[in-house]
Amino acid sequence: MVNRIKKLMMRRKIHNTLVRRCLGEILGTFVLLLFGCSAAAQVKTSNEMKGQFLSVNLSFAVGVMSAMYLCMGVSGAHLNPAVSLSFCVLGDLPWRFLLPYSLSQVFGAYLASAVVYTMYYDAIMMYSGGILTVYGPNETASIFATYPAPGMSVQTNIFDQVVGSATLLLCILPLSDKKNRPAPDALLPPIVAAVVLGIAMAMSSNCGGAINPARDLGPRLFTLTAGWGTEVFTCYDYFFLVPLVAPLFGALLGCFFYQVFIHWHLPDPEPETVESQPQDPAIQLKVVAL
Amino acid sequence: MVNRIKKLMMRRKIHNTLVRRCLGEILGTFVLLLFGCSAAAQVKTSNEMKGQFLSVNLSFAVGVMSAMYLCMGVSGAHLNPAVSLSFCVLGDLPWRFLLPYSLSQVFGAYLASAVVYTMYYDAIMMYSGGILTVYGPNETASIFATYPAPGMSVQTNIFDQVVGSATLLLCILPLSDKKNRPAPDALLPPIVAAVVLGIAMAMSSNCGGAINPARDLGPRLFTLTAGWGTEVFTCYDYFFLVPLVAPLFGALLGCFFYQVFIHWHLPDPEPETVESQPQDPAIQLKVVAL
Amino acid sequence: MVNRIKKLMMRRKIHNTLVRRCLGEILGTFVLLLFGCSAAAQVKTSNEMKGQFLSVNLSFAVGVMSAMYLCMGVSGAHLNPAVSLSFCVLGDLPWRFLLPYSLSQVFGAYLASAVVYTMYYDAIMMYSGGILTVYGPNETASIFATYPAPGMSVQTNIFDQVVGSATLLLCILPLSDKKNRPAPDALLPPIVAAVVLGIAMAMSSNCGGAINPARDLGPRLFTLTAGWGTEVFTCYDYFFLVPLVAPLFGALLGCFFYQVFIHWHLPDPEPETVESQPQDPAIQLKVVAL
Amino acid sequence: MVNRIKKLMMRRKIHNTLVRRCLGEILGTFVLLLFGCSAAAQVKTSNEMKGQFLSVNLSFAVGVMSAMYLCMGVSGAHLNPAVSLSFCVLGDLPWRFLLPYSLSQVFGAYLASAVVYTMYYDAIMMYSGGILTVYGPNETASIFATYPAPGMSVQTNIFDQVVGSATLLLCILPLSDKKNRPAPDALLPPIVAAVVLGIAMAMSSNCGGAINPARDLGPRLFTLTAGWGTEVFTCYDYFFLVPLVAPLFGALLGCFFYQVFIHWHLPDPEPETVESQPQDPAIQLKVVAL
Repeated sequence: MVNRIKKLMMRRKIHNTLVRRCLGEILGTFVLLLFGCSAAAQVKTSNEMKGQFLSVNLSFAVGVMSAMYLCMGVSGAHLNPAVSLSFCVLGDLPWRFLLPYSLSQVFGAYLASAVVYTMYYDAIMMYSGGILTVYGPNETASIFATYPAPGMSVQTNIFDQVVGSATLLLCILPLSDKKNRPAPDALLPPIVAAVVLGIAMAMSSNCGGAINPARDLGPRLFTLTAGWGTEVFTCYDYFFLVPLVAPLFGALLGCFFYQVFIHWHLPDPEPETVESQPQDPAIQLKVVAL
Repeated sequence: MVNRIKKLMMRRKIHNTLVRRCLGEILGTFVLLLFGCSAAAQVKTSNEMKGQFLSVNLSFAVGVMSAMYLCMGVSGAHLNPAVSLSFCVLGDLPWRFLLPYSLSQVFGAYLASAVVYTMYYDAIMMYSGGILTVYGPNETASIFATYPAPGMSVQTNIFDQVVGSATLLLCILPLSDKKNRPAPDALLPPIVAAVVLGIAMAMSSNCGGAINPARDLGPRLFTLTAGWGTEVFTCYDYFFLVPLVAPLFGALLGCFFYQVFIHWHLPDPEPETVESQPQDPAIQLKVVAL
Repeated sequence: MVNRIKKLMMRRKIHNTLVRRCLGEILGTFVLLLFGCSAAAQVKTSNEMKGQFLSVNLSFAVGVMSAMYLCMGVSGAHLNPAVSLSFCVLGDLPWRFLLPYSLSQVFGAYLASAVVYTMYYDAIMMYSGGILTVYGPNETASIFATYPAPGMSVQTNIFDQVVGSATLLLCILPLSDKKNRPAPDALLPPIVAAVVLGIAMAMSSNCGGAINPARDLGPRLFTLTAGWGTEVFTCYDYFFLVPLVAPLFGALLGCFFYQVFIHWHLPDPEPETVESQPQDPAIQLKVVAL
Repeated sequence: MVNRIKKLMMRRKIHNTLVRRCLGEILGTFVLLLFGCSAAAQVKTSNEMKGQFLSVNLSFAVGVMSAMYLCMGVSGAHLNPAVSLSFCVLGDLPWRFLLPYSLSQVFGAYLASAVVYTMYYDAIMMYSGGILTVYGPNETASIFATYPAPGMSVQTNIFDQVVGSATLLLCILPLSDKKNRPAPDALLPPIVAAVVLGIAMAMSSNCGGAINPARDLGPRLFTLTAGWGTEVFTCYDYFFLVPLVAPLFGALLGCFFYQVFIHWHLPDPEPETVESQPQDPAIQLKVVAL
């Protein structure tokens, strides 16, 4: 019977590239948020008895790694509209893919929030006493979307998100730049995960370190529909606009810095690889085999 | 003398594939639980002075990695009946191997619990005041098997185990899928370990995050025989059935999602590798050498 | 328009090697300190609610990894005058590059401090009550530069910095020594990051574990200009001289130990590789291909 | 001048294999203990303000990784008499090397303790009030050697050390077994480090998790000479004998288990590699190149 289902489904193989890619981004962002928000729920509802701030950071990193292995071969594993926008600007993604990619990422994040809410329903109810709020000691909205720490000015939040997203792009662009010293292609996911871990440990204090409009908007939309009310959008003077817009500028800034200060001045890879960097046995071999 | 023993044993080399594989699964699951339950015992009996919740998660991850290197070449290192079932459905493991694999995994987990109990006998007796119980502040049963947090409904526990196991399969299937962008074969163990770490940090709050019937049943059987009494099975309304059955459905669900949303739509690997992904020097070489 | 800018900039491609390299070191050290000091600010201003000492150590390690991938192909990613000095002595860097490299590193660290200060301005003001001091429970100077623990003698601080820097060089030199068993070239950054993590966890108690004159002087100069006053230089009996000078001697000592006790006695790599270490399939292949 | 020294030293190149290897083991074990004991000193003397139990475990792991890269190409990086003994029994090390290796390892550990003591002299004096003792809340002997937790019976301690050492060997032997699925040769150090981290997190509660006679005896001898008195040997009923002797038996047990349950039943690698596991591109290449 399994085989029959298999054959039936096989006939439905999607040959349309865009649909296939969007499916990849949906599932990828779903997995990223599933790890991240579950860990946030586990740490908050257990009053830090079953994990700490560091566990949440680590869990987001595992989410990035897993999501990248899941959909890198399908959609490139952007998982973030700011990353998709950057790749459009850099010419690695056709502009017409930008909106479908971004919507898929938001949708995947929304779905993950729904699963996390169902999974932690009992715990959230117990922790919050049944009152889903954005403010106060029993708030549970921060399990899903990001909110600023008390007393942060709007400029600080914007600057924080711009710097965080710029750092992300500045650190992941060299990883696959053949003119620089790239990381092994098959190990990009754990290395990008480490970069995201670093940003989460260093730049999430002011306003949660979203650095990703989909990671923030998807769960925020979910909390709106699940009973936290419109406060999730209006609170802290419409704070939700910051993680929605600032990462886009930040990511472009990061690309600009990498291009202007590093990439454009690098010599072309071919001659240099053969001449001065024969450290990798597999590359040495190339020379030998020729 | 050592050589004489060696020769004697060499003659006993097991040529029967199934027996060899089962030995592999026994030893692998033994190592997995040895790391995991020892860490749980260390953290609990030291009152979190010699480790924290995160150490237990990390230790299970090291157990996964070590167990995979130990028996990947022998049995494929499933270490989990839910994984074995999935591989049967996917056609990677003959169905007649399913029961022997599962029993071996439970047996390995049982043996590991016995070793951990012996190793931490003094500490467990001191911590529990000599009374081995499932409930209360001095309970020690959770060192071995998983138990739900107070107030969790049975639906929550089932959903938790289904989601956890589905996440596991969804995240490990792409790692060796040649049509996707697989991880390096020799580094699968640490990468799978990272996935398990993520699940432990994000989805172990409700009911312990077993996601593995053998990891739960083996130690539970041990606690039954070692003096914790039949409560280990009857407590929380026969909770033991949840980590025994739900992971099987969860794992299949994970496979289904990966197949339907990702795998079936991927183009065949051969043409694409040569054309568009010549990033890996060793693959480039292939082209050159040809 | 983006393309027009691109073309405009392309014409400005820097062909001067030294300028290109210095740009690389500036940006690399900038990223290193951006991760490190941000994490220090996050942990301190959140009163360890959003991270712990370990997060800061981990964040510095991520900074090292990211900075190395960023500029290894440009400048070799020294990120540390003590490392540059060592490579001059070992003959891997021309002496005339030493001063430009060191100044670039200090400048990159200075810039990063300015960004961190802007990003955490609100939090620093709230934590310190608006008074930027070097001493006392609300001091914030240690977010940027390193300061000794109370009661440490000057000899202890010097010895600490010498040992730390020597350990750094002793541990990173074998990683790329072809006569020894080097790490994979493309994975040097995470492995060096692990070494730095180890030093931060083990040798940062006495006086902050700078082991890098630029990592300390750049942020210290920033705090001088940003309002912490001249105390940042005069405090603890001109302590700033210790992380400025001692790492240079420590690094040379580490090189000396590695050269004298390991490197000089290693047989030349070619014959041994073929004969006794054909474990790596890629190396085996070399033999086969020949 | 540097060049003149270099030439002078070059002439002193040690061609004697044993001396070179012993130098390697001395320096390797020195680095291992330098990381481990420094971290123990940092955590203890800072009252867990600058690190926690987990930092010490992680630091020992970094020490293992660094030490292995340092001397793997020279001496094989045993760093542990129990490992050397195992390799003698397995035929990978000539028996006449066992004693020199073991003494080198103890000597390296002794030297590292001396450096750590000097580096943390001020902090140890402040923490202990100047009284170096083995017992009590201000004891500092456990920074260096291992001591049992109160109430542990001698059988428990022996069993603990046997199991820990057996786990170590059981987990590291498959990593380089060409008949199994070995780890990449150049990444053995971080993977072995992860195994040691796991053992430290899971099996160090009862009596400190030495699993290495040199790691324990070297620092213990140092504390004897440095002023902790003969109690370091006589305390807890001559406990020092346990980590000195039990790991030797444990390691052999681990080898025995790996050989009997896994290694002897594995098919020879050649045919299987070509036929059923052509996943690694480099191996595929071999077939192609042939």
